[in-house]
Amino acid sequence: MTAIVFLTDYGLQDAFVGTCHAVIDRICPGTRVIDLTHGITRHDVRGGALTLRGALPYLPDGVVLAVVDPEVGTERRAVALRCADGRVMVGPDNGLLAPAAERAGGVAELVELGRSPFRLEPVSATFHGRDLFAPVAARLAAGATLEEAGEPLDPAELTPLPLPRPERRAEGHVAHVLSIDGFGNVALDVEHADLAGGGLRLGRRVAVTVRDEPSIAYFGVTFTDVAPGDLLVYEDASRSLALAVNRGSAAEQLDLAVDAEVKLAPLD
Amino acid sequence: MTAIVFLTDYGLQDAFVGTCHAVIDRICPGTRVIDLTHGITRHDVRGGALTLRGALPYLPDGVVLAVVDPEVGTERRAVALRCADGRVMVGPDNGLLAPAAERAGGVAELVELGRSPFRLEPVSATFHGRDLFAPVAARLAAGATLEEAGEPLDPAELTPLPLPRPERRAEGHVAHVLSIDGFGNVALDVEHADLAGGGLRLGRRVAVTVRDEPSIAYFGVTFTDVAPGDLLVYEDASRSLALAVNRGSAAEQLDLAVDAEVKLAPLD
Amino acid sequence: MTAIVFLTDYGLQDAFVGTCHAVIDRICPGTRVIDLTHGITRHDVRGGALTLRGALPYLPDGVVLAVVDPEVGTERRAVALRCADGRVMVGPDNGLLAPAAERAGGVAELVELGRSPFRLEPVSATFHGRDLFAPVAARLAAGATLEEAGEPLDPAELTPLPLPRPERRAEGHVAHVLSIDGFGNVALDVEHADLAGGGLRLGRRVAVTVRDEPSIAYFGVTFTDVAPGDLLVYEDASRSLALAVNRGSAAEQLDLAVDAEVKLAPLD
Repeated sequence: MTAIVFLTDYGLQDAFVGTCHAVIDRICPGTRVIDLTHGITRHDVRGGALTLRGALPYLPDGVVLAVVDPEVGTERRAVALRCADGRVMVGPDNGLLAPAAERAGGVAELVELGRSPFRLEPVSATFHGRDLFAPVAARLAAGATLEEAGEPLDPAELTPLPLPRPERRAEGHVAHVLSIDGFGNVALDVEHADLAGGGLRLGRRVAVTVRDEPSIAYFGVTFTDVAPGDLLVYEDASRSLALAVNRGSAAEQLDLAVDAEVKLAPLD
Repeated sequence: MTAIVFLTDYGLQDAFVGTCHAVIDRICPGTRVIDLTHGITRHDVRGGALTLRGALPYLPDGVVLAVVDPEVGTERRAVALRCADGRVMVGPDNGLLAPAAERAGGVAELVELGRSPFRLEPVSATFHGRDLFAPVAARLAAGATLEEAGEPLDPAELTPLPLPRPERRAEGHVAHVLSIDGFGNVALDVEHADLAGGGLRLGRRVAVTVRDEPSIAYFGVTFTDVAPGDLLVYEDASRSLALAVNRGSAAEQLDLAVDAEVKLAPLD
Repeated sequence: MTAIVFLTDYGLQDAFVGTCHAVIDRICPGTRVIDLTHGITRHDVRGGALTLRGALPYLPDGVVLAVVDPEVGTERRAVALRCADGRVMVGPDNGLLAPAAERAGGVAELVELGRSPFRLEPVSATFHGRDLFAPVAARLAAGATLEEAGEPLDPAELTPLPLPRPERRAEGHVAHVLSIDGFGNVALDVEHADLAGGGLRLGRRVAVTVRDEPSIAYFGVTFTDVAPGDLLVYEDASRSLALAVNRGSAAEQLDLAVDAEVKLAPLD
């Protein structure tokens, strides 16, 4: 039996996550459920989508169950899909699954779950995690097919996720804050492959400009490459360019929020 | 082997929950433990009791292990019980188990665990979760009987949980706040069956009065039935009447705490 | 297959912990992973070490995976070790494992993991939990030997953890704050065996002096031995002397932080 990898913005204060676990165990006793995280900021579809995409290369085969669903109970579609690499994903069709599905080779099969025979009746208007998504994920993990789970859709109909685009200019990179982790480390939308030609070089200084205010950083590989309190530019564990402060919070020090623009230019 | 469903107010900052998991795994390697939640407010017996009762219909067969225990180490009884529907529950006898046991058909068998042969010696005065409740739950999940776990009590002796009672008046409902979730959604003590005769109708406006101050809400089915920032009356996923603010917190907007009185009257 | 007991300072807001779970499940599907806690204060090596040591008697056989690693990506060693009692531990060699290993009979075998064949390439500079420690723990849980995991070191080379030493004087104990739990209960570095000769007696009053300011406490066994808001001295569930306030926070009331000096003297 395959595992279910579970991501939500439900938090762990309430019993939402535990109830979904219970529902899965009732349907398929003993299913392995791996909690990727339930700490996505409430309603932050993009944060959930990027976290899922970043973790993808490390996930076991099986079913991804992802729920960040501000439009629950409305006409937004609920979907399950199979990627070109065989991985199955279940969740709301609001962009949450799209970046991970793209990284998994694109969508090979897509179904709409609104009237899935696997749903728990009566389906509540506000807790589709419990009544729709978890039951469908449990059945798919136990071997059911997408065809049994819902109504076929054209794979091209999966709702994409709009993302800012970084620019490379003569004087460096214009990037954006993709996400901020619990330590205040700031991931930018510049990936390893985008670095070529931007002039940034490991071991050199970098001007980091936020709202026209420049700070000086060092392009290193790990936190302790700079003194405590100093600013570091580095490639993070997802191979995105990122900002950190050794033993501090880059997000606080630079007053950065998601989507903020950050300019990076070589200084040396 | 049956599953254990585990609920506490221990939080996840410390190793209390993890130590109980470890104790269970030592006694019965491989026992499935489903964490319903460990985010119950510290010492909030009623919050724990209502969370447990609300999740009950979704739980797999097996053993409920619930610990919200402000009187740990005193003369308060520790108990295990079997409900009329076969479900087994373990925890302090302070009202925590009573509402769920009642919903599971009432108590068919009750034992006192103070000198249980399954306890870990020496039993600490402050961590009965580790030394008493988890070991008993592990043995019961592995097939031990209640008779083996403790001394028989009259099932009628289980301590009940006092709860406020809502009233239905000619002009609407006088309700009370049962619980508030992490999103600020407010559950009231009016259930689906209590609505008849109160005059509230889906799709109509409702006057929500707190401390003599009225607000206008809309009786809908999901958050997006009202504009962001507007107040919604709805039946929540436990089929209780509830208050929410679309993309906001009803508890904050109305300054509500548990037990507060809330009057609801039809406006249209 | 043995279990993995997992402790970090990663928190649960991000996907760090979940990604390590995923890595373990990819390598050894179905491995039991027990989350001891991920709530260790960021970079608090000592807090992690003491939590691990305190929980040790309650852990199932198997592999401890512990990561509190402020020097990740530097020259600090990564190690795996086998204790005299057979238990295996994996983590950074910064003192985190030493107190638990000592309690498990001392280190019988020690290996360095820097070039472990079990690591995931490319190893990131900032997330050795995912790329090094979790994969090694998964292989060891599945039966690999330490010899296969890394290069042998002299067991005496494990980095120790410096700890304050309590004193017993004619007029009582000079203790230090070891740790503070989420309820504000304060563990001191006086253990059960250290109490003899210090003059403190159960059921009597104790002068608790912090920064030359004395408070009166009662030496009892559980929280409700004192009135709500009153100060209690007690042996906690790890059999260390501790301070608590019934239904309050001793850490807040006495303004205590880790390492603070606390004098205890009999009053009656």
